[in-house]
Parts: sequence; structure tokens; C-alpha cells
Amino acid sequence: MERLRQHIEHITSLTNEEFEYIQTHFTKKRVLKNQYLLHEGDDVKNEFVVLSGLYKVFFLDEQGREYIIQFAKENWWMSDYQAFFQEKKATVFIECIEAGEVLVSTLETREKLSAELHKMEHFYRVKLTNGYVALQERIKLLLSSTPQERYEAFVKLYPDLLQGLPKKLIAEYLGVSRETLSRLYSR
Amino acid sequence: MERLRQHIEHITSLTNEEFEYIQTHFTKKRVLKNQYLLHEGDDVKNEFVVLSGLYKVFFLDEQGREYIIQFAKENWWMSDYQAFFQEKKATVFIECIEAGEVLVSTLETREKLSAELHKMEHFYRVKLTNGYVALQERIKLLLSSTPQERYEAFVKLYPDLLQGLPKKLIAEYLGVSRETLSRLYSR
Repeated sequence: MERLRQHIEHITSLTNEEFEYIQTHFTKKRVLKNQYLLHEGDDVKNEFVVLSGLYKVFFLDEQGREYIIQFAKENWWMSDYQAFFQEKKATVFIECIEAGEVLVSTLETREKLSAELHKMEHFYRVKLTNGYVALQERIKLLLSSTPQERYEAFVKLYPDLLQGLPKKLIAEYLGVSRETLSRLYSR
Repeated sequence: MERLRQHIEHITSLTNEEFEYIQTHFTKKRVLKNQYLLHEGDDVKNEFVVLSGLYKVFFLDEQGREYIIQFAKENWWMSDYQAFFQEKKATVFIECIEAGEVLVSTLETREKLSAELHKMEHFYRVKLTNGYVALQERIKLLLSSTPQERYEAFVKLYPDLLQGLPKKLIAEYLGVSRETLSRLYSR
């Protein structure tokens, strides 16, 4: 749980007493390679804080084609946030690519900690602000950019993933063909 | 300013004293048709709460082609949020399509009111949550959907804009050609 504390204190400092209380709302869970933390159609009860490992959040269109919304690594939060906040059924999958550990939390925890501790409302607001900015960046890239620009944005966002990830996944994330990706690599 | 109060109280109730204090941080401004509230390259000092009128947030690629990120109408908030939060130069434009009024605020106000009033930190968190969900929805649509699905999502999001907006702007927002849009209309 020390990792959670560092993560929160990166944004707002906590007393020992506050952290003792906060941590009771999170549960640690081991995740195995290829395990699904979320499947389309599930009730979305949880959000996850990544302690270790690598995960992908994706959805399938009607033809079964896969689209990757994000990869998540250490200190990233992940869920089907649309469904999580609106208490609807999942429309995305979360699959583990490299085994690791996550902390599991709930919407009730998010709302309760925010109401009880101004500091935690601040923490969640700052996390959301960062998330909002990242999504806006992704929209601008999707709307306009060339494969070259998308690739550069990917390298910037996930510098340490470039070697480890199968090229197939990177191509899906960028929305380009394998051939286009190979051309980008060779530059 | 009564409109601002209703807008905030939709999320959290305020005492008269609190609202008196909050409203001193917002300035009302009239905006004329075709006026720019933000231009690429500007320092992004402000965010805007729309009281009336209609606005578009867009950017230009290197070839000068225009891409619309969002339309904003009554009660919507708008800025180049990426630049606003990170205190960078604007990469987008905000132009007034139909004259109206906005409230002008700053990042300093957002942070100050959030720090001083737990209720306002809550208000901003909830607004961000809604914004985050909307952006995620837009990403999923951009990644996968057919022009037909994008059009339906647009109709759902902006039911009252369909008649008033030039078809050219709707086509730009959807990322489809004018011809494709005409086919969608005729269905």
C-alpha cells in the first residue's frame, strides 16, 4: 500500500491517520497474463490502480475488429469510465498483457472519500484533469494527424512500451495497418 | 449571475454568502458573431461558461484544413483545456457562431475556489467527470464508427443544433464529406 500513498502524496500530502483510513478502501489483487479484469456486458463496479504489469483497454466493433483505447502501466488508473460513472454495463474489455498487481476500488469509495476528505476530492479532481487533457490530445490526434504524427505521440506517451509490445497491438492503438507501422519503424 | 448559481447548484447547494463570494470571480462578457475568444498561439488565460449563443472550438492542420473539436452552447464550459491546465500556448481557436454572453474565469480562480471551498472542488470534479466521459465517447466514435453512427451520436448530443448549423460545420465535426452528410440527412 506504500505505493498508493506515494501516488496520492504526489498530489496532496496526507497524515498517517488519513492514509490508514484511505487504504482500507482499496484491495490488492494479483492479475495473470491474459486475465480479463472487465468484459463487455459486465456491471462496472470497479476501477483499478495499476501497481505493476501491463494492461490494455479495448472494444470490439460489430465485425469483431479490435480497437485499443489505452494501455495502462504503473500508476495509471483504468476502468470503463463511462460505464463506471454512469453505473451502466461495460462496453469495453480490460485484459492483462503482462502479469502484475492492481488495487481495486469502487465508485462508492471515490464519492465517499471525496465527501469526507477535501484532500481526496482534490486528488481525484487533479487525476481527472490530467486524464481529461490526455483524452483531448488523443482526439486531436485521431481527427487530424498522419500515421507519422500518431506514432510520434505514441512514443512520447509510452516511451518504455515500444520494445515490449507486439507490433500488432501498437498498430491497433494507432489505427494503422501493420505495413504502415513497419514503414514508421524503419525511419 | 443567477444563471451561474443555478448551474453550480445543479451539482451542489450554496449559501447566499458563498455564492456572493464565488460570483466575484467571474466576469460577464458579450460576444459578437464571428468574434474569436481564443486564437492559436495565444496564452490561454481564460475558460468560458456559455450563458447564451453558440461557439465552435476547432484547430487547423498544417494544410489549413479545419477540424471541429466541439460546439458549445448554454451551460457548456470551453477553453483550450490542454493549454489552460498546463499554462501553454493555445493550439485551438474558439469562434462565436451565434452572438451571446459568456462568463470569463481563470485557472487561478478554479484552483483558489477549489482550495477554499470543498463544495467548489466537488463542483469542478463533477464537471470534469462529465467532460471526461464525453471525451471518451468521442474517442470511441472516432476510432470505430461508421458515418451513420457518428451522425446518430451527433443528433443525440446536439438535438437542437441540427437545424440551425450550416451543414459544412456538421460535416467537419463528423469528419465526413458534404456528400456523405447529405446521404445521411436523406435517410
